[in-house]
Amino acid sequence: MEQRHRVVILGGGFAGLNAAQKLKRANANVTLIDRRNFHLFQPLLYQVATGSLSPGEVAAPLRSVLRRQKNTEVLLGEADHVDADAKRVVLRDGGVFQYDSLIVATGSQTSYYGNDEWREAAPSLKSVEEATAIRHKILLAFERAERADSPEEAKAWLTFVIVGAGATGLELAGALGEIARETLKHDFRHIDPGAARIVLMEGGPRVLGAYPEDLSAKAEKLVWRLGVDVEKNVMVTEIDQDGVTYRRGNSTSTERLAAKTVIWAGGVTTTPFARQLAERTRAATDRSGRIKVNSDLTIPNYPDIFIAGDLAYFEGKPGKPLPGVAQVAIQGGAYAAKVIKGRLEGKKDFPPFHYFDKGDMAVIGRASAVADIFGFHFSGLIAWLMWLFIHLIYIVQFQSRVLVFVQWGFEYLTFSRGARLITGEGNDKSRES
Amino acid sequence: MEQRHRVVILGGGFAGLNAAQKLKRANANVTLIDRRNFHLFQPLLYQVATGSLSPGEVAAPLRSVLRRQKNTEVLLGEADHVDADAKRVVLRDGGVFQYDSLIVATGSQTSYYGNDEWREAAPSLKSVEEATAIRHKILLAFERAERADSPEEAKAWLTFVIVGAGATGLELAGALGEIARETLKHDFRHIDPGAARIVLMEGGPRVLGAYPEDLSAKAEKLVWRLGVDVEKNVMVTEIDQDGVTYRRGNSTSTERLAAKTVIWAGGVTTTPFARQLAERTRAATDRSGRIKVNSDLTIPNYPDIFIAGDLAYFEGKPGKPLPGVAQVAIQGGAYAAKVIKGRLEGKKDFPPFHYFDKGDMAVIGRASAVADIFGFHFSGLIAWLMWLFIHLIYIVQFQSRVLVFVQWGFEYLTFSRGARLITGEGNDKSRES
Repeated sequence: MEQRHRVVILGGGFAGLNAAQKLKRANANVTLIDRRNFHLFQPLLYQVATGSLSPGEVAAPLRSVLRRQKNTEVLLGEADHVDADAKRVVLRDGGVFQYDSLIVATGSQTSYYGNDEWREAAPSLKSVEEATAIRHKILLAFERAERADSPEEAKAWLTFVIVGAGATGLELAGALGEIARETLKHDFRHIDPGAARIVLMEGGPRVLGAYPEDLSAKAEKLVWRLGVDVEKNVMVTEIDQDGVTYRRGNSTSTERLAAKTVIWAGGVTTTPFARQLAERTRAATDRSGRIKVNSDLTIPNYPDIFIAGDLAYFEGKPGKPLPGVAQVAIQGGAYAAKVIKGRLEGKKDFPPFHYFDKGDMAVIGRASAVADIFGFHFSGLIAWLMWLFIHLIYIVQFQSRVLVFVQWGFEYLTFSRGARLITGEGNDKSRES
Repeated sequence: MEQRHRVVILGGGFAGLNAAQKLKRANANVTLIDRRNFHLFQPLLYQVATGSLSPGEVAAPLRSVLRRQKNTEVLLGEADHVDADAKRVVLRDGGVFQYDSLIVATGSQTSYYGNDEWREAAPSLKSVEEATAIRHKILLAFERAERADSPEEAKAWLTFVIVGAGATGLELAGALGEIARETLKHDFRHIDPGAARIVLMEGGPRVLGAYPEDLSAKAEKLVWRLGVDVEKNVMVTEIDQDGVTYRRGNSTSTERLAAKTVIWAGGVTTTPFARQLAERTRAATDRSGRIKVNSDLTIPNYPDIFIAGDLAYFEGKPGKPLPGVAQVAIQGGAYAAKVIKGRLEGKKDFPPFHYFDKGDMAVIGRASAVADIFGFHFSGLIAWLMWLFIHLIYIVQFQSRVLVFVQWGFEYLTFSRGARLITGEGNDKSRES
């Protein structure tokens, strides 16, 4: 075992996990390092935030996924930095790992566009903890409204703002619309949850800016039917615990909306670790800090370091970088693994990475979605069934994840949401002592 | 509505929730107040701690359970005190609720027998948050062992101590045995999870002290088969992050066991709120602070205040107080509701509360349990099937909880555990900013 090629993979997201799996039969020792012990199925995280699924249902323990892969070990740890010249990764806890090939798939983090102080009032949907915190916030808002002292106060508790109308923002808004109008319909005595106002704010001229225009229009209509107000061409200038201040279009004056619940579904940026990696390898980055990679996903001058997933800046077409979505990460991770395997078998030339775009889809409420599959556009129930089918195929790879679909089926029939718990934040009597 | 009899119920556990449900057709306005928005199915909490179930699967939102009960409202809030003479409850947030009848079902909290500093190193299994923290601790211990620098360190990480061999302690020990020997079997490369040492420490002379002796012996044998070391007549004198110090029997010297994971499954005591209630009503209490109630579960001199569940001290037979288990709470809550309903209908005399003891059961690992049903004793698979059946009947009352059984069936067949996530405690990159 000692002399085998050592592959270190940083990050167990879509890119890292797929790279590891593709190295199953490689003549190499693979070490997958992640800060968390699980792979997170990020596209379903909004369902945790809205109480449909439990965290355990959108995640799979990395060890468990890779348990039968004998050449691979999983380590819980956080990378501090990469010493690219000495070919080693140093962890925060001091652990040092030599590598012959390195795949960096550490992903992105939420960007508040320089307004990090907004994070407190407007959590984003990036981690399991944040999803749980958002669920807490949403459910608590209805509780507070039920006990509000004045109609104004109740109204502020029943106003929900989602900033950013990409797929995540739309999915959240749609789910919120359903919670207010269906799930909680009979649950309160002093308020009507159906009177909740859900506002989706978008800086650009349309929702789902990355999708074809007809699907944007469809999506807006579908989410409107669920009772969501869509505000486009709106620039948020301030967020605090009591609401949102924003400017419309080219207007010079601002408006204020009282809302106790604001959720951030805006952009992403690079992590401090990735910025440091770029500096140390003198790699070029784009505005958001993504590392510009060669056509084989390696960093210029470092043919043994691959970047896959959200962190890679790679132009699919000239001037058109690939988006930070699961499909790009999966294919990038698999490509890096293939190159490493090929090199071990003595190959020298590899075709450049080519992203095979299977399309995009976003779910809008119950049994409704928009989809762009190989250029064909679908919306409504048919798009939702396709979404369900594609996610089914992916998720059942992980044992027991099939239950998610039983759960969905059940909730679809009953309008219920099984995971509506408000937990955490010092509510625990037994800790008071 | 204004002139109707007002019933306030404090606590949405087994006693409070059952009382509320039994008041469905009463000519009264019912207000159920709880600090949490959910009813917790406490007997299954150990399955959250051991990664079999998600928190959402052992809890049901109180609003959702009571949504169709038009005379009842649910409020999220924490009682600060009861002004028994003015007949009102004051919440911590300042809310004031007048009552005509009050049911106090606020339960108990973990007791460290005066050593509250042990809590840090040895969490107990009382809340969803603690169950998640214990899961975190257990899974992290295997991760740390995998990366340990020395065999001694690895051994300390692979040593798990459970203090207290009641039903919870046994259930935890059995589940831990299975995790080590089955679930994680193939997951690590540097350690053998099966070599983990699980020690169940008990102060008394046998496990399941409240059960008949033959079932204690059976249970000890079953848990031993799962690789658990049972230490009886052991007195714990110190717990810290590195292990447990204890004394055997009448020995004067202490022994030390290096163990990075210690879980407290010891006793319970009363809450500060309940102590205050006893003082204000000049009610007698037992040693652990439970309030001594009349034969109709009311506090002496306060016929409008009922105590149900863990907080009530009620002698089933002379000198034999009823134990703090779900069945007692359910029947106590239902009885209090019945008396209130009866009084509203003009009845004056009520038979004293009588606990109908259906028996006890404890699960020890997969498909194995001990049970004492109406005095008949069972163990092994048959006891487990009975346990499953009884819990099934109870849980399916709550919509969608039936999925728990699909999940169990699946995990029974595959030995997997779906909810093996290590979450929380600052592992979240996106919060670093």
